[in-house]
Formats: sequence, structure tokens, C-alpha cells
Amino acid sequence: MKGIILIMDGLGDRPLKELANQTPLQKANTPNMDKMAERGINGIMDSISPGIRPGSDTAHISILGYNPYEVYTGRGPFEASGVGLDIVPGDVAFRCNFSTVDDDFIVTDRRAGRIRDNTAELIESLNKMVIPGYEDVEIIFKESTGHRAVLVLRGENLSDEITDADPKVVGKAPKTVVPTNDTPHAKRTADLLNKLVKHSHNFLKDHPINLNRIKNNEPPANIIIPRGVGLVPEVESLNEKYNINSACIAETGLIMGIGRFAGMEIIEVEGATGGIDTNLDNIASTIVDSVNNTDYDFFLINIDGADEAGHDGMVKEKLEFIEKVDEVVISKLLELENVVIILTADHSTPISIMDHSGDPVPIVINGEGVRVDDVTRFNEIDSAKGGLSRIKGSDLMNILMDLMNNSSKFGA
Amino acid sequence: MKGIILIMDGLGDRPLKELANQTPLQKANTPNMDKMAERGINGIMDSISPGIRPGSDTAHISILGYNPYEVYTGRGPFEASGVGLDIVPGDVAFRCNFSTVDDDFIVTDRRAGRIRDNTAELIESLNKMVIPGYEDVEIIFKESTGHRAVLVLRGENLSDEITDADPKVVGKAPKTVVPTNDTPHAKRTADLLNKLVKHSHNFLKDHPINLNRIKNNEPPANIIIPRGVGLVPEVESLNEKYNINSACIAETGLIMGIGRFAGMEIIEVEGATGGIDTNLDNIASTIVDSVNNTDYDFFLINIDGADEAGHDGMVKEKLEFIEKVDEVVISKLLELENVVIILTADHSTPISIMDHSGDPVPIVINGEGVRVDDVTRFNEIDSAKGGLSRIKGSDLMNILMDLMNNSSKFGA
Repeated sequence: MKGIILIMDGLGDRPLKELANQTPLQKANTPNMDKMAERGINGIMDSISPGIRPGSDTAHISILGYNPYEVYTGRGPFEASGVGLDIVPGDVAFRCNFSTVDDDFIVTDRRAGRIRDNTAELIESLNKMVIPGYEDVEIIFKESTGHRAVLVLRGENLSDEITDADPKVVGKAPKTVVPTNDTPHAKRTADLLNKLVKHSHNFLKDHPINLNRIKNNEPPANIIIPRGVGLVPEVESLNEKYNINSACIAETGLIMGIGRFAGMEIIEVEGATGGIDTNLDNIASTIVDSVNNTDYDFFLINIDGADEAGHDGMVKEKLEFIEKVDEVVISKLLELENVVIILTADHSTPISIMDHSGDPVPIVINGEGVRVDDVTRFNEIDSAKGGLSRIKGSDLMNILMDLMNNSSKFGA
Repeated sequence: MKGIILIMDGLGDRPLKELANQTPLQKANTPNMDKMAERGINGIMDSISPGIRPGSDTAHISILGYNPYEVYTGRGPFEASGVGLDIVPGDVAFRCNFSTVDDDFIVTDRRAGRIRDNTAELIESLNKMVIPGYEDVEIIFKESTGHRAVLVLRGENLSDEITDADPKVVGKAPKTVVPTNDTPHAKRTADLLNKLVKHSHNFLKDHPINLNRIKNNEPPANIIIPRGVGLVPEVESLNEKYNINSACIAETGLIMGIGRFAGMEIIEVEGATGGIDTNLDNIASTIVDSVNNTDYDFFLINIDGADEAGHDGMVKEKLEFIEKVDEVVISKLLELENVVIILTADHSTPISIMDHSGDPVPIVINGEGVRVDDVTRFNEIDSAKGGLSRIKGSDLMNILMDLMNNSSKFGA
């Protein structure tokens, strides 16, 4: 028996006046999701806890059975993992922006003119950086999309108890990083960071890529500004934790990062954009192919478009994307055999909020042996009447493993 | 967006034969509560945990998002806060009775003839008390209602790991206080308490108030007997915890004490008695006025009458009080705008038990964006079928803050 958790990112919503007080999911025509509801056991789920507004990262961490309050030390480690860096416990990781500073070290553009190209070459230079006095610390940069990058510090006696360097607005110098705890490790790491920010300017200001940008009247990417510090935590891999062979099919670096962090194999999908324009056909065929023709027995799948539409407040687009996923992806899932399939979301992204909310999300489980209830529609309102009642994300893997007959008895 | 949690103290009940197996709330005619059910999302709530019989104090502590198992060190601190004493973390607080002892130091009346008057003058004398060897400990008494008072010990090296002085029955001497833990602080505090009880007799026995009582054949209030010891804990104020500006509208010292303890502003209501004879008109107009004309954005409101009727086993009175609250108070709440309103209870006080029970309580939430379910009646049975399912009191503030758009995202 194999198992799938399909997360429709940001699927949940609140009733909307323009939809006659229905949610986009309620209003959408979703015959295949409704068939899952009819065949399965339904409920609602708080991915972290009732009322808590989860990020996609913390929600997925919780759904995979890890405690986000322990594991989520900051965004840095998950960004680093997301761009494919092999981070190890003890690393201190950051998100970074390539930014532009003037001769007085004042930030004039936090995103260096939203630079898109050649950041890999800038990173190559930065990776030669050694900070005097900190020769024992390995400094690893890696480019992400656009003006984004990550930074990993690897070595002894480092700490994540430090502030951000990001001034958040233009017209100010990068912030001096200070320790948030009075320990030698925190002081040392803060000092290292301040030197690193200054050094990055020396490495980048006369770089040929930047000289070329200046010639073209583009803001040079002449400094690195780190934020979102986090200490890479030590965690048991998902495969060990649940005795499975797991793979992650995701569209975004953020979710791939969670997958890598949990030691999952990442299966990439051609044409997956993470938006409503993503290639759902390819996602569907990748799922079917991976379930039928690989040895992986657990799949975490994330489809991101509904979240994007929610953040943008686009009700029609959210509704239509849900219908498209129903038609293209869920229809294919219904044909799979010997699989326990869970369809749910990581959080709600209500159109009216244009951000995540703490509302629970609908959940349905299909598979042999589930206690089929009388719910016939998959949405925020109907699912709440199902046989699962209201569960927590942190219980989901245990529920799935039990239905897959893949868990051991606790006691006699 | 403002928020209200209206607690009808002890509202929940169990089915009663004399009500054709309905609860008082089920049987009562409550068109306004039912309108809230129809407009809102419904459920049941365990204010602490399923089956746990909460006190009103521990239930409110939990509903405000504090862990009662950590915070509730004893009843003393909350009684002290309830009578308006400004307690600080580290204080050791007690409830006390004025009692009567005879010449052999045997308690002849635990409540000193239920003395009602002039206890403030007795307290004035007691507050001059200094115990030899404990000059560094500040001893603060304050009268409460009737024969009740509170005692606060303030100083270094004190402990709440000590027993009660209350013998619980007449015909015995006050109990010798002993340490429950073998620490110098506990031993010291126990010794101080024993001396304080004896000293109180010296201060009180020849007090003019008591000489007068003896002359009138009334038992003199000639000793103070402390019990319910608790160490005042250090807690984050509710305003800091949730980034709000909060006020508490309550009838009883117990609930006002919880409010003060959480750093809330206390709004008193003229004519509020905490009984079924309370002035509900004044309570309703105080709520409406406070919501519409003050800067407070969160209100904890407690109406106590249903609990009193439950404790007294008076089914008709409980039912009629519920109907009166519906008519006088809930009708007014329905007219408020831009407010998320939660109507619930702190615990059940079943007529058949005449005390609190561990049964969950009904809950309904009204406000913009709530996922309206198909429940149309507010009571212990119908509410259980609603979209909230079964929640915990400790999640309630998070759920409310999310609906008020007043919470920050955990993660990205």
C-alpha cells in the first residue's frame, strides 16, 4: 500500500459576498474532489493549531510530523535547503538579497534593480571570501531566483541569536547585526556577519558584471544583505521516522526545501511554475508515473496556484484553478490503485485577507478500509461534518501510516 | 475590528427529566442566541480539557490563553487580585477567614458569626503586624466580603510549599502549618504563618469591634485563619501577548481578579450582583457603550447568574435567567458592528450536580468572515454539530485574534 498527501497550497478560504456567501472551493465545480468526499472520510484540519496562521513552511513541517516550534529556527535553513544546498545540523543559514549601496554605504535599491541574470557569477566571487579572524568558518553562498540568494556559515561556535542586517527600507545603511543573547558565540557570529556584509561590497563593487550594469544604467548588485537567520536543526529523516521511502513532488523552492530537509527525494516537474499557469498535465502524469513505476511508497505533493491567487485576491482565478486541478489532477488520482490518498491544504489563503489565515482546511482520505461517512462535497463547510472531525496536521502522518498498515503497535 | 468573549458562567448543563430530557438552555426560549447560531459558526468547547471539572478561575485563565497548570498556583493570588490588591510576582498570597476561637484556642466558629460589618477596621489593626524575626517580610491584609479576607506576604525567601491553617471543622485548634517540601524557604514561611495566626489573635481579641460583638452575644472575629496559598506567578500581560487593548466587564471579585492578573482594565457595572437578580440592563448598556465609545478592542465579559442557579439546583431560575440574558443582553450584542462576538461558557454547572462538571460548553462565533454552518439553535446538543467541531479553551484567543485580523504569521 502506498500513500499520498496532496496539499493544495492556500486552498482554504472564507465565505465571499460575491460568491453568495460561499467560498471559492464551495462554489467551484469539482466533481472529482466531491467523488473523493463521497468515497472517503472527511474532516477539517488545523495544520499547526486552531487559530494559528501558518506559513507554508511551518504548515508542511507540522504535517510531516515535525514540531515547527522546535524545528523552525528561522527561514534561512529552509531557503538554503530549497536552493539545493546540502546543509548540516549546526550550520547557521540566512536568506540574502543582492542590494545596491551608494558610495556612502546607503542602500539605494534593496533588490539591485531586481537583477535576474549572472548572479551565479557574483556568487562564485563571493564564495572565495575569507574573513580575517574567522578563517575557521566556511562561508557558502548560493544564488536563488532573481535578486535572492542564501548564505550558510559552517564552523564551530556559531549562533543564530543575532539580529538582521536588512534595513527594510532604502535610504539607510545596512543594519549593524547585534547579538540577541549575551553569549560569546552570538557576539562572535554578529561580528562575523558585520564584517561579511562589508566584505561583500569589496568583492562585488568592481565585479565585471556590476561594471557592466552601471554602464547600462542598472543598479549594481554590489552588496549582500542577510536576514532570516536560523540554526540548522538536527532531525530524524522522514524515512527513518516512519519507515518509508519518500519522495516530494513540489513546484516551489520553499516546499522542495522542506522535502530535502526531511531527507525526501525531490521529483521535479517540467513546466511547474508554482502559479496558476503551471503545467497541471505534467504534474498529474508525474504523480501517476511516480506512484506506478517507482519504489517510493510515500509522496508529499504540493500544488501552489490556489495560494498565489489567494495572495493576489483573485477570486475568479482561484476558483478556476481549483476546477482545473480537479479536472486534470484529481481525476487521475481517482484511477490509482492500492494507494491511500489524502487531499487537503496547508492553510487557508482567503481572498478577503490576501494572506494566510488561521482557519482550518478541509481534508478527505480515500483508500481501502477508511470509514466512509455521509459527506458528499469537499469544501470548508461540508467536510467539517465528516467522520474525521477536527484533527491536527501533526497527526496526519500517523493516520496515514496506520491506513497504509505501516505502523507498529505501541504496547501489547 | 473589535472582539468580545461573553462568558455565561456555568451555562452548560445536563438533560433533566423534569425538562423532558432537555437542558435548561435547550428548553429556554432564546431567539437571540439562536440567531447568533444561525449567523455564525458553532461548536463545543472544553475550557481546559475534556472531562476536567474547571473552576471559574482556571477556566477563564485557560480561555485567556494561559496554562492554568502553570499559572494557577493556588486560589490566594486570584482572591488577592480580586479584592484589588496590587500583587507582584513572588508574593505569597492566601485566602483567609475571620474566625472565632475560645480561650483554649479552639475554633468555635469558622466564619465568626458570618461577620458582615467593620472588618475593614480589624484589617487596619492587622496591617500593623510585624512578626519578630521576620521584620523583612511585608504583611498585607485586605478585607473581602463578609468574613473573608486575603493575606499577602511580600519579601525574599518565601515559599508556597506549605499546608493550610484551616482546621475545616469547629472544635479543633487552627492547624499547625508545615512545609510540604524540605527547603529553608518553605520551613521559614510555615514558621512565619504559625506565628502570624497566633499574633492575629493578640491583635484582634481585645479589639473594640470584638468587645462590642461579645457584648451583643455575637462571636468575635478574634483570629485570622489562612488557606489556599499560592505564589504569584510571572505572566505576560494579555495586551502584550496578543497586541490588544483589553478590558474586563465582570460581576464577581473572582473574575475581576483574573482580569487584573492578566493586566486588563476592569470596567465595573452598577447594580451587578453576580446573582440572578443582577442588573442585566446595566450590563448590556455598559457593553454597548464600552464597545462603541472606548479604545478597548477586546472585551472579556462574565455574567454569573446561571452558575449561581446551577449551584443552588434551581432549574426554573436557571432557565429564566438564561431567557433574560437572551432578551436583555444578547439582543443588544446582535446590533453591534465591526465586532467578532464569541458567546460561550466557562464550564457546565448542571442542576443535577449543583456544582461544576467536566462537560463541554456550547460556543458560537459571529463576525465577518466566519464560515457559517447550518446550526440554528444555541445549546449543548445542537452546537456540537457545528463547523467548529470540538475546540479547547486555550485555542480561543488565537481563533479570535485570527478573525480580528490581529495575529502574525508563523513562517513564510
